[in-house]
Amino acid sequence: MRVPVELSKALRLLNHGPTVLVASAHEGRRDVMAAAWNMPLDFSPPKVAVVIDKSTYSRALIEASGEFVLAVPCAAQVDLVCGVGQHSGREMDKFAHYGIATASASRVQAPLVEGCLAWLECRIYPEPHNQQTYDLFLAEVIAAWAEDWAFKDGHWQDLPPEQRALHHLGGGNFLTSGGPVLQGRG
Amino acid sequence: MRVPVELSKALRLLNHGPTVLVASAHEGRRDVMAAAWNMPLDFSPPKVAVVIDKSTYSRALIEASGEFVLAVPCAAQVDLVCGVGQHSGREMDKFAHYGIATASASRVQAPLVEGCLAWLECRIYPEPHNQQTYDLFLAEVIAAWAEDWAFKDGHWQDLPPEQRALHHLGGGNFLTSGGPVLQGRG
Repeated sequence: MRVPVELSKALRLLNHGPTVLVASAHEGRRDVMAAAWNMPLDFSPPKVAVVIDKSTYSRALIEASGEFVLAVPCAAQVDLVCGVGQHSGREMDKFAHYGIATASASRVQAPLVEGCLAWLECRIYPEPHNQQTYDLFLAEVIAAWAEDWAFKDGHWQDLPPEQRALHHLGGGNFLTSGGPVLQGRG
Repeated sequence: MRVPVELSKALRLLNHGPTVLVASAHEGRRDVMAAAWNMPLDFSPPKVAVVIDKSTYSRALIEASGEFVLAVPCAAQVDLVCGVGQHSGREMDKFAHYGIATASASRVQAPLVEGCLAWLECRIYPEPHNQQTYDLFLAEVIAAWAEDWAFKDGHWQDLPPEQRALHHLGGGNFLTSGGPVLQGRG
């Protein structure tokens, strides 16, 4: 079940460096793309940074709407994550083409892609220099959600490999998140 | 053995979202800190983004020198990664305190922390607004290195858990990188 995540814990959804899906919508058009280049930026209010290339249709929708949703997909969705990177939203509605089920977000127009582990609803800080020079978008997280079996009481749960997050190695090759690290505290 | 990584492949050292160590040096002073908030920013020339808090001693050295090294530590170094986050470089030389062995970098003053998997020598793009408002540093990767058993021919190798990269969940808890994801290409 998808449950709200308090904003003070929202960055933990991204902190371990997963590849995300970026969903966007504006005036009835929508798109979704994959982005390995994302990171938390600040705690309070929670902020994120993500790189969105000028060539993408998502970029146009994000600049027009000022909003996007970052969704954290799991290993079972790897073909979808690769697939949405192989076509442009200018050519097709990727949601229809890939049969991507969605739910409505609470505070932005962009949808929540079903099957993911967690979602961050984001509103961009207009920073034209960063956007133009570096394709870099900075945004505030204004609402966050997670599957309760995946992220509970502010902590990622130990999940079977097919439900773990994806980490892009480059060239369309991915790792899952691995196991917890035992610390000596020595 | 530490071998050079061609710059066109250097971003793959960070692409999967590992926590890094940030090493810095200026006029005989040096520091090292951990940073989970980092990402690739552009391919050519390779650029990275990293968040460096104003309160850190590293920040002063990085702003003064315009340089840093991002090192990718492995799970066997988790206590070091946690430890360098618990003290300030203003209080102590962390390299001496933690017995951190280093090697010289090729193009920057900041050292290469031994025992890591890979290293990116970086020169910052002065962006005062980003640095002041977001604690965000953007930098060009001007040289890169990796242990040849960890990263070979432009690809991360399949490593035993203690030699895999670290992914910070928050609160001092880490995952390792996991195993490769099989794709259906369906």
